[in-house]
Amino acid sequence: MASLKRGGVRAVILAGGAGTRFWPASRAARPKQLLPLTGGAPMIAETIERVLSLTDGWQSIYVAGGRATEALTRAMLPELLPENLLVEPMPRNTAPCIAWAAAVVARTDPDAIVLVLPSDHHIADVPGFRTALGVAVESARGGSITALGIRPSRPDTGFGYIEIAAETAAVVDVVRFVEKPDKARAEAFVAGGRHLWNAGMFIFRARDMLDAVREHLPMLAFAIARLDAAAKSGEEASVLEREFAAMPSVSIDVGVMEKLKNLRVVPSSFGWSDVGSWEAAWQLADKGELGNTGPAHAICIEGHGNHVVDLRTDAAANGGSQKRVVALLGVSDLCVIETDDALLVVPRERSQDVRALVEWLRAHHPELL
Amino acid sequence: MASLKRGGVRAVILAGGAGTRFWPASRAARPKQLLPLTGGAPMIAETIERVLSLTDGWQSIYVAGGRATEALTRAMLPELLPENLLVEPMPRNTAPCIAWAAAVVARTDPDAIVLVLPSDHHIADVPGFRTALGVAVESARGGSITALGIRPSRPDTGFGYIEIAAETAAVVDVVRFVEKPDKARAEAFVAGGRHLWNAGMFIFRARDMLDAVREHLPMLAFAIARLDAAAKSGEEASVLEREFAAMPSVSIDVGVMEKLKNLRVVPSSFGWSDVGSWEAAWQLADKGELGNTGPAHAICIEGHGNHVVDLRTDAAANGGSQKRVVALLGVSDLCVIETDDALLVVPRERSQDVRALVEWLRAHHPELL
Repeated sequence: MASLKRGGVRAVILAGGAGTRFWPASRAARPKQLLPLTGGAPMIAETIERVLSLTDGWQSIYVAGGRATEALTRAMLPELLPENLLVEPMPRNTAPCIAWAAAVVARTDPDAIVLVLPSDHHIADVPGFRTALGVAVESARGGSITALGIRPSRPDTGFGYIEIAAETAAVVDVVRFVEKPDKARAEAFVAGGRHLWNAGMFIFRARDMLDAVREHLPMLAFAIARLDAAAKSGEEASVLEREFAAMPSVSIDVGVMEKLKNLRVVPSSFGWSDVGSWEAAWQLADKGELGNTGPAHAICIEGHGNHVVDLRTDAAANGGSQKRVVALLGVSDLCVIETDDALLVVPRERSQDVRALVEWLRAHHPELL
Repeated sequence: MASLKRGGVRAVILAGGAGTRFWPASRAARPKQLLPLTGGAPMIAETIERVLSLTDGWQSIYVAGGRATEALTRAMLPELLPENLLVEPMPRNTAPCIAWAAAVVARTDPDAIVLVLPSDHHIADVPGFRTALGVAVESARGGSITALGIRPSRPDTGFGYIEIAAETAAVVDVVRFVEKPDKARAEAFVAGGRHLWNAGMFIFRARDMLDAVREHLPMLAFAIARLDAAAKSGEEASVLEREFAAMPSVSIDVGVMEKLKNLRVVPSSFGWSDVGSWEAAWQLADKGELGNTGPAHAICIEGHGNHVVDLRTDAAANGGSQKRVVALLGVSDLCVIETDDALLVVPRERSQDVRALVEWLRAHHPELL
């Protein structure tokens, strides 16, 4: 840590997601962020790549995730310092995890600026994203916990919204957090211009987050203090499971952000997508003339708009032999998703229902999952 | 052969087909007749099962096929006598193969009745089929080469037709063979009631077929005579390739049947299907309430009429572990066909185009085939 600048920027990448929207690709041991859904690299690697230049390099990068994904995450991020992978012993939502990460950073530099970033989002305009982060970092340096808010491009009912009074500057005060709205409210939000999507990206000084946790989640703060004490004597690992088990399972939004008086937000537009479905992944993928996507061994004839994803590992297992051909003839706007243990065929427009399909399978055919 | 009755019934199962209509399931090494397209057993096994009771058992069963399928055919038919698999060194259409089989039978019993049957057809009404065969066997015993002709249920342009004067008896004289007609003629055939589908099923005394070959294909007859001579001295295998290479490549229809003066036919209706496409296979398959087919690990939700076929061998390769789930959500009337080296998705109504797809792949992406 010697070469880390005091007050420098560090990134905490939240990689605890499980999720079933990308079934069969996403599984407990390989959730969305570890998949190359929008390009050649896993989304978590793309996330880190986007912010590495704003930090002091890999020593400033932390990843917080669960045990199920620990080995694969380390393998996919060989440059990540081993101690910078913060392995949560059990899922406790985002507040405990972010508080713990802030504490870990604060142990070496309470003035360090922390970028909390989800690991599984896509950003089309990376320079624009970095500019917005720069504004947020300056705001955080001034002592304000600061969010990035995305100017909504459609009345999406799948996101929480951040309400502001007006967009009078590059960074403005937050009026309130709004939970996922219904369609009518979402439409009003988009029309009104005073609501931003909450993309789960927060920027703050480590000390400020710890202060906020002490004020709004005191039980969590006590647990964090016990972790700090254990860390001093080199015993953090041995108490981690016990402390995590006792922590409240609460999101940073509900536990902290909604209660802050001085929360600020940077209204932004940088081509953000949470890549929430196979449809969204298709939107972002490289497409041929007819809108078909897929690897070289996928052939679409007399059809358009098909999204073919082959995540099978047979080729490797078979000594790198040719992947099997995927031939689509006379079908359009379908998702065809292959993994080693499942095949999914679903119209693109119904890809939001994959989550329900998985629930159905879990209820009726658990042996197939 | 000691226990074979003189003048008994033997079956020659034609298993030389290759074909691409069932790609990706059908391949050079595993053509249609070796696939379980309409039930649990490979079609060739079902074909033999249908006629076994009419013969003196497995010693009366001959299978004629190519080298590419020899090993798999033997493995799938463990009761077939090794010497009763007539392995054609190279494809020479049906006349050489049937003449050879007739000669092999005639070596032990020239009066034996031979049933020539394609190996890859489906028959719904097996008792009806056996009754028709019984009529044909009696006709053959009287010295007439006799075909089974199927009363057409639709104006199919994919079959040859057998014209008769009128259906005046259980077995009638053939007026002529008619090549595949156009739609208008096919419709006239169906309306007229004097045309039957040529299903490629012929019944004759071994000696009568050899006489007919001598008369109409003398060069083939000479080659067969040389095979007989070589067989006497135990050297047939060593001359087979040379003799086959020199044989005319001609179908039994064109080379013999069309030229016969005394050909007879048994007009029949026993639910015959040549199972010419995935659509036809779906028609014949067991279906659930919504018309979906597939193995237990295939799940169709909110969709109907889907035909799911999984011929992957992974389960075996993985030590018998669970096959991967196949999930279809919100799609209907699709064929989803899986093999170890290909996946095909095609609407059922376009399954006739699979052959063209394979041609296209061969031309543009031979590396994928």
